[in-house]
Amino acid sequence: MNTSSEPLFLRALKREPVERTPVWLMRQAGRYLPEYMEVRKQAGSFMALASNPELACKVTLQPIERFGLDAAILFSDILTIPDAMGLGLYFAEGEGPRFTKPVRTEADIESLHEPEAGKDLGYVMEAIRLIRSKLDSDTPLIGFCGSPWTVATYMVEGGSSRNFENIKSMLYRQPQLMHRLLIKVANASCDYLQAQIEAGAQAVMIFDTWGGSLSTASYKEFSLAYMRHIVAHIKAHHNTRDTPVILFTKGGASWLEMIADTGCDAVGVDWTCDLAHARKRVGDRVALQGNLDPGVLYGNSTVVERECRRVLDSFGPGSGHVFNLGHGIHPGVDPQRVADLVAAVRQHSPALHR
Amino acid sequence: MNTSSEPLFLRALKREPVERTPVWLMRQAGRYLPEYMEVRKQAGSFMALASNPELACKVTLQPIERFGLDAAILFSDILTIPDAMGLGLYFAEGEGPRFTKPVRTEADIESLHEPEAGKDLGYVMEAIRLIRSKLDSDTPLIGFCGSPWTVATYMVEGGSSRNFENIKSMLYRQPQLMHRLLIKVANASCDYLQAQIEAGAQAVMIFDTWGGSLSTASYKEFSLAYMRHIVAHIKAHHNTRDTPVILFTKGGASWLEMIADTGCDAVGVDWTCDLAHARKRVGDRVALQGNLDPGVLYGNSTVVERECRRVLDSFGPGSGHVFNLGHGIHPGVDPQRVADLVAAVRQHSPALHR
Repeated sequence: MNTSSEPLFLRALKREPVERTPVWLMRQAGRYLPEYMEVRKQAGSFMALASNPELACKVTLQPIERFGLDAAILFSDILTIPDAMGLGLYFAEGEGPRFTKPVRTEADIESLHEPEAGKDLGYVMEAIRLIRSKLDSDTPLIGFCGSPWTVATYMVEGGSSRNFENIKSMLYRQPQLMHRLLIKVANASCDYLQAQIEAGAQAVMIFDTWGGSLSTASYKEFSLAYMRHIVAHIKAHHNTRDTPVILFTKGGASWLEMIADTGCDAVGVDWTCDLAHARKRVGDRVALQGNLDPGVLYGNSTVVERECRRVLDSFGPGSGHVFNLGHGIHPGVDPQRVADLVAAVRQHSPALHR
Repeated sequence: MNTSSEPLFLRALKREPVERTPVWLMRQAGRYLPEYMEVRKQAGSFMALASNPELACKVTLQPIERFGLDAAILFSDILTIPDAMGLGLYFAEGEGPRFTKPVRTEADIESLHEPEAGKDLGYVMEAIRLIRSKLDSDTPLIGFCGSPWTVATYMVEGGSSRNFENIKSMLYRQPQLMHRLLIKVANASCDYLQAQIEAGAQAVMIFDTWGGSLSTASYKEFSLAYMRHIVAHIKAHHNTRDTPVILFTKGGASWLEMIADTGCDAVGVDWTCDLAHARKRVGDRVALQGNLDPGVLYGNSTVVERECRRVLDSFGPGSGHVFNLGHGIHPGVDPQRVADLVAAVRQHSPALHR
């Protein structure tokens, strides 16, 4: 295979030579974009948008068309799996995701529907095929799911949570029950990501938004182990493309070495961790993705340029860096700042790859 | 001085020999205690309680009386300083702290009242003298303040915040203005902690709840630098007791070495970081305080005992560990679990100090 014909993003994930650092942004298709808000309004609700392949395709492509980012990410939600398991996902206005039927007991866990991704989540695969057919070949499409731990927090709490009272209670009092729930979500996630890859996703990312709520011992046992399970499944069942897998634990700066040891291709890093230090710690095992403070986009053009440069220089010369924020883009951001960010990465990164 | 006559907690902070590991809990005087709820109701509002020396004294002593903890901590709030600066602190029911006059412009910063701790915050000193007069000599009293960065987040946002839009905008667009605000808060904090020490506080702690929202570079410049300033002030102006200073940045696991280098005596560690690893990183420069996951208290007695033991063993043999949670105790916790925690530390820690 002639690697130079592969898109920039995929080469960077494999730490193969690149001409410049590729860039995409978590939640790049989102509320900060007026064209997104228009489609969102038209759809009526978040789930109506996410479950409509034409509309999901439309919003996925919006930031690519506007900014020329180096990867597209499927517009969807990490809670499609529990929704397909029968929990009744809905979004309360201004309050985030909710489930009509939270999972608290052994009976709740036993009665969970085991979704078939191709059927129960067919709308996602349809969106992927549609997006893939409209994206040019230089722009890979990223599929994703939530980490089993993160998804389980919403399932057990019934929505967003501050202190994780119910799931921590389950984790500490009934660890075996906790594991039964997690393996169900993990198996569904394996099937789901596999189906996304078959439908056309060229890389997949696992979002572990709430892994950072765990102690080190609990993180290993209840979050990392299940991400490792999914990585192993994808690596064992990959198609001929050897689809790269990116793991991202928000607040996981203490655990970068362990995450890198799962067999994943890249580790997402939040902005509390310096990339130079992160790179030293993970060595050449994995690529790194991140890690601009999303708050930088509240600054002006000069600030955005300076801070992007700081992140690029912190990673330093050579391949293996995918530029991104350290977390999702905030809704109040001016889209012009994203244009500034992309311009800064395109301008300053070639010098790091000569 | 005969160190064996000093209280356990102070000896552990100085890494002097102890018979067992001392224990206290962040937010030990709080909503999980029915006797606290009674006084809180009687006072009418949080600030009415915090600003009444008799009532503040009463709730400070409640957890000491109930559990026999090894240190008391002044019942107060990290926002007393901006309140004394004229911002009008109040607590909206269920929404946390708010200021009637947030600080956004140069004029806002220039017009801030520079409080005299002894006068404008006299109610705090009065509470300290009262508590000290009622506590036995084995139970030291901890004074505290918020880190200038953390306090400034509330001042600029006007209350709690999710994305820190206003303060990040100030930090990135007008760093000099940001520094002017921070130095004002830092100077007021020096004076405030000094007055607390003179009134009878035997150790002081700086709570940097939101330092973890910053990138490494910003953390050094906008949070750590001002905590170092306060530590230096206290160390230069200490009375004959050489009052120990504890720094705690929530989400600061990446920065333990830097925090230990400020000249503080102890570093608070949240539960995402293993104490064994933390101890290796900071060496014998400082004591460590922490770091049980507050969610463990949602478990049963067996769980609490097992997890306390895990934290004790993780620090390992020798002095320099103050047992605590990795963050404040959650309101929904059964007080019996705190009794279990204290019992576990008393039972298992002596073996680590033989």
